[in-house]
Amino acid sequence: MKFPFAEALKDINAQIAELKFGEKPLELYDPIRYAMALGGKRARPMACLLGHFAYQKDYSQALLMATAIEVFHNFTLVHDDIMDQAPLRRGKLTVYTKWNMPTAILSGDVMLVCAYQILAQIKDKNHREKLMARFSETAKEVCEGQQLDMNYETTREQTIEEYIEMIRLKTAVLLGFSFEAGAVLAGAGEEAKFMYEFGELIGLCFQIQDDWLDSFGDPEKFGKLVGGDILSNKKTFLSLTALKLADANQKKELNHWFTTDYFDSEQKVNSVLKIYLELNLKEKVDHKIDLLYAKAKKTLFNTSIGPFNKSIILSYADQLLAREN
Amino acid sequence: MKFPFAEALKDINAQIAELKFGEKPLELYDPIRYAMALGGKRARPMACLLGHFAYQKDYSQALLMATAIEVFHNFTLVHDDIMDQAPLRRGKLTVYTKWNMPTAILSGDVMLVCAYQILAQIKDKNHREKLMARFSETAKEVCEGQQLDMNYETTREQTIEEYIEMIRLKTAVLLGFSFEAGAVLAGAGEEAKFMYEFGELIGLCFQIQDDWLDSFGDPEKFGKLVGGDILSNKKTFLSLTALKLADANQKKELNHWFTTDYFDSEQKVNSVLKIYLELNLKEKVDHKIDLLYAKAKKTLFNTSIGPFNKSIILSYADQLLAREN
Repeated sequence: MKFPFAEALKDINAQIAELKFGEKPLELYDPIRYAMALGGKRARPMACLLGHFAYQKDYSQALLMATAIEVFHNFTLVHDDIMDQAPLRRGKLTVYTKWNMPTAILSGDVMLVCAYQILAQIKDKNHREKLMARFSETAKEVCEGQQLDMNYETTREQTIEEYIEMIRLKTAVLLGFSFEAGAVLAGAGEEAKFMYEFGELIGLCFQIQDDWLDSFGDPEKFGKLVGGDILSNKKTFLSLTALKLADANQKKELNHWFTTDYFDSEQKVNSVLKIYLELNLKEKVDHKIDLLYAKAKKTLFNTSIGPFNKSIILSYADQLLAREN
Repeated sequence: MKFPFAEALKDINAQIAELKFGEKPLELYDPIRYAMALGGKRARPMACLLGHFAYQKDYSQALLMATAIEVFHNFTLVHDDIMDQAPLRRGKLTVYTKWNMPTAILSGDVMLVCAYQILAQIKDKNHREKLMARFSETAKEVCEGQQLDMNYETTREQTIEEYIEMIRLKTAVLLGFSFEAGAVLAGAGEEAKFMYEFGELIGLCFQIQDDWLDSFGDPEKFGKLVGGDILSNKKTFLSLTALKLADANQKKELNHWFTTDYFDSEQKVNSVLKIYLELNLKEKVDHKIDLLYAKAKKTLFNTSIGPFNKSIILSYADQLLAREN
């Protein structure tokens, strides 16, 4: 049986649309409905349904879990946008900008509580409490990742290993948990941990790919300003790899661009991109992603999931990574 | 058996000191330990133990619940202090001031997750999930109260009834839930809702008393700047009652002080206090508190709790309210 991606997305969005967060005061609950309606790929809930589908055709048992994860994910976005002072998210005003900082803090807080309320509705008594415990662990890791990300903004030195650990926490563990939680609800038992590992590795690939697209993506397809990471001196897989591989002159130039307060934006982006190209970063990025992807594939293939379902899961991962292969 | 208040406070603080919030990054977990160590009266955990003690002598079964509530309460303080831009809390720097806003947001988020992790450790399987559901409901109400409080900052009109509903949500429901949760764990069954009501009513008395002390308290005993509410034009039981009772001249003067941007602090506080005295607000405050307190007492007396335990609970409420009677 093929996985009905379009239908699953509809089901996820219908489940989200049905959520009753609360009514009064509107100043608290309108921002929540707004944040949840901003949409996006719903990658995490989809991963949760796929994790379930791998072991059981009927994924409807995983819909509440998937929705709780999406509410949690959007809570992190609402709070992150305050910390990053981000005006836009998916082309629309962030809650922080459309309302204000206190409302964004409070609405986010309520979203986190709502995620737990949704988890509490999961019918499967045998797994509900275990999943809630894993959810809490994962939630803390995501916050740890965000804190590390902020820490590295103000430290000069960061190794590539530290960077990988940061994106693992900030981005990858939640994708891992999404696959895992779906699998647990489908009765995958011990194997659920492989689904976690698979999702975590794909999450790492996704973030490194995202770093690449920020510098070299097609602005129309990518939907963000290309070069944003360079302009904000963000430490990414690209900038850290470049600094590691650069010769004395290139290093001097990179350090200049990453520290100067006075620059022409276009000149800065183009100068840094030129060095990235000279250093052949595409090859390094592809190599890193290939390594992680191969590991993910191997983890998936170690499960008892049937070959057809494995190929469905892999093709979803490919879709997330916009990979041709 | 007398209730061992001093020992119970030690037990609460020992349980809090034992909590393992997390280790790395320190920038995330140090603020949590700092916030929890700021102390305070531990009024809510104490209420939880008392709610348990009323039905069962050994309150140790309620210690985890009590701790979860205190972690939640401190999470709300960490986030409220950002929204209120409060530099000090209990005479020490707030997390927001000692660290920074993003760290205060994130540390608070983790504290909320930790509260759920503590709840998940409660051994009593029969009541754990029900209590977690009530906890989530209460948590949302507290956030709703905080949002209402912020809403009323920018609206001119607020009735006394609206004010009472705001402090009910922001302050009283959590004290109510504390008594209730202790009682539930002690097997109080249906009666737990009376413990909730009792705590909620005492919470209302407490907040109105706090409003009074902000204007007329002994600064040394109260531990805050007297007149702070007046200086910040905060709508309180006092200011709303005064505006309701004032004659045309008094109303004009109050409205002047509550809207002008240019004033001498001492002159403003003294002028407003003079009107409060003229209007005999002490009587109104006492009357309101007496009504609520009588209702609370009646609720408590409707339970099956023994007379001796009732008197212990009432004497604790008196202590919270610093009542002589």
